[in-house]
Amino acid sequence: MKISSATIENHLDTVYDAIVVGGGMGGLSAAIYLARYGLKCLVIEKGKGRSIWMQDTRNFLGFDPTTPGRDILNHGTKQAIAWGADHLRAFVETVTDEGDTFAVKVKIGKKNSQFYTLRSKYLIAASGVIDVLPELEDMQNVYDYAGYTLHVCMICDGYDMWDQKAVLIVQREAQINAAFVLNWFTPYISVLTHGLCEVGDEMRQKLADHGYPLYESPIVRFHGEDHKMQGIELADGTQIEATTGLINMGSIYHNQYLKGIEGLTWEGENLVTNTMCQTSHDRLFALGDLKQGLNQVSVAVADGTLAATQIWRYIRRASPPRKWQENLPKATTAA
Amino acid sequence: MKISSATIENHLDTVYDAIVVGGGMGGLSAAIYLARYGLKCLVIEKGKGRSIWMQDTRNFLGFDPTTPGRDILNHGTKQAIAWGADHLRAFVETVTDEGDTFAVKVKIGKKNSQFYTLRSKYLIAASGVIDVLPELEDMQNVYDYAGYTLHVCMICDGYDMWDQKAVLIVQREAQINAAFVLNWFTPYISVLTHGLCEVGDEMRQKLADHGYPLYESPIVRFHGEDHKMQGIELADGTQIEATTGLINMGSIYHNQYLKGIEGLTWEGENLVTNTMCQTSHDRLFALGDLKQGLNQVSVAVADGTLAATQIWRYIRRASPPRKWQENLPKATTAA
Repeated sequence: MKISSATIENHLDTVYDAIVVGGGMGGLSAAIYLARYGLKCLVIEKGKGRSIWMQDTRNFLGFDPTTPGRDILNHGTKQAIAWGADHLRAFVETVTDEGDTFAVKVKIGKKNSQFYTLRSKYLIAASGVIDVLPELEDMQNVYDYAGYTLHVCMICDGYDMWDQKAVLIVQREAQINAAFVLNWFTPYISVLTHGLCEVGDEMRQKLADHGYPLYESPIVRFHGEDHKMQGIELADGTQIEATTGLINMGSIYHNQYLKGIEGLTWEGENLVTNTMCQTSHDRLFALGDLKQGLNQVSVAVADGTLAATQIWRYIRRASPPRKWQENLPKATTAA
Repeated sequence: MKISSATIENHLDTVYDAIVVGGGMGGLSAAIYLARYGLKCLVIEKGKGRSIWMQDTRNFLGFDPTTPGRDILNHGTKQAIAWGADHLRAFVETVTDEGDTFAVKVKIGKKNSQFYTLRSKYLIAASGVIDVLPELEDMQNVYDYAGYTLHVCMICDGYDMWDQKAVLIVQREAQINAAFVLNWFTPYISVLTHGLCEVGDEMRQKLADHGYPLYESPIVRFHGEDHKMQGIELADGTQIEATTGLINMGSIYHNQYLKGIEGLTWEGENLVTNTMCQTSHDRLFALGDLKQGLNQVSVAVADGTLAATQIWRYIRRASPPRKWQENLPKATTAA
């Protein structure tokens, strides 16, 4: 059921089998499986996740390519609740490992916030990442193109950039290396640092060798209409012609609440997991963009399947078997 | 495009980047990704795969629970072809490793069969498994219930058996152990061997301890209507009341064409793969039910993503970079 600040008091004594932090593609898949295993689970969703920005879903089997990410999320949320999952719109402040349980402290509401603590045996970290976007005075100008013709994922959208004039927007020199992968899809690449980093001679030479111009003046404005980019204007007055772009400025990881938990293995900001999405902490699982591996919807959805199944196995094995007839003869034979 | 015996001659000189054996959930996902990476790929589908028997899809994010597997397969086939994949209805007879390529010998048509050889750099084995069903004189009687109320996958459908009277149908003694997992969902379990195996004293005692009756006479008929089971009649005249069932008689693996290829690592009939679904043979990938791991649609779909992406990486890294402007100055600066 949907839980709100009006009803949360009824859930403070519950020990959930699993709390899922993040109601994105991975978290909802986990919740659907957990609920169908008959386990008590709660999804905590802060809103504004990465896939809500997806304007189309072109590579997830069975969906029309024009399906927006938010449609899948809305459908999946209803589906998880219908199977029996609880769902709360809140922000996870901290998680404390209490030994047998996790204490999950949530904040409800941005103004006059209320704080509550919920508990579970297992925790599924499915809170993902969000892409860093170039900061302009008019952010709406960025949102008008981001997720449409200005992409954040080459694996998802490289195809849609095919042989077009493209900009690659970075904030660190190492991120420029994406140009030498993006050229699989198009060789017409202009690299923009948005004035955020120095570029060394070696990288300048490599760009020159490939014929990719480098622009180091900050972006002022994206030009175009109906979400279709036509070009970019820089602070120094340069106009760059481009009908598409890739933003490769890194990601912000929603993993702060995990940083105090002992026993986790990190690789950078990613959690290291086994084949069932279990971290090096037995009772903590990580899905999708938060763990090592490809940041793809299909992967996150499978991750939810795997984590939920492993949690079910643990809980099932620790439960007494359910018996039927108590007094069958020792050796049963057909009549 | 769709390829048929009428047009296949035009494709015999093609060296595909990848041939995907099996147009099920995993194979189609791989084809969608391969096509969107701009790679030449061919899906070879024999028909009658496992997921075409799925009458509903209750745990795959974003789908209505009543979605039949065949709808997803039909949609995915069209989608893969629309992105540029080739698709052939045929049976893969043999695959020969030629060093740089695989030669895939296919049979088209069950009568007056024609044989052709197609070639690819990489092979994706996505041919899956099919469940063994109990053989009755009237197989239509089995098909009337299988995939509806008579299930083949506990992880998929255990929820839908909740606290119902259930039969567990096996053909080997070890398969009876599923009863001690199925009892998570329902304790009202009758075990049926369909007259196919002996059951030792230890297992009989374990069943008796749980109160699960054992029936060793062959099944004659499933009773019910509108795909809803009501009971089972055995050859010895016994009538068993049951509204649901789990068939756990093992799987037939569609992997014969792989048995002659050197360098593969098998665990039983499953291929051992790494995190990108790559087998121990560098150019051969395995997806879904054919590899180790959970036999779930979501997993197969993610597997397709992973295998296609790794193949793209290999092919991209082996390709010369695409350049743009040849005569940029050594150090480019903003105007």
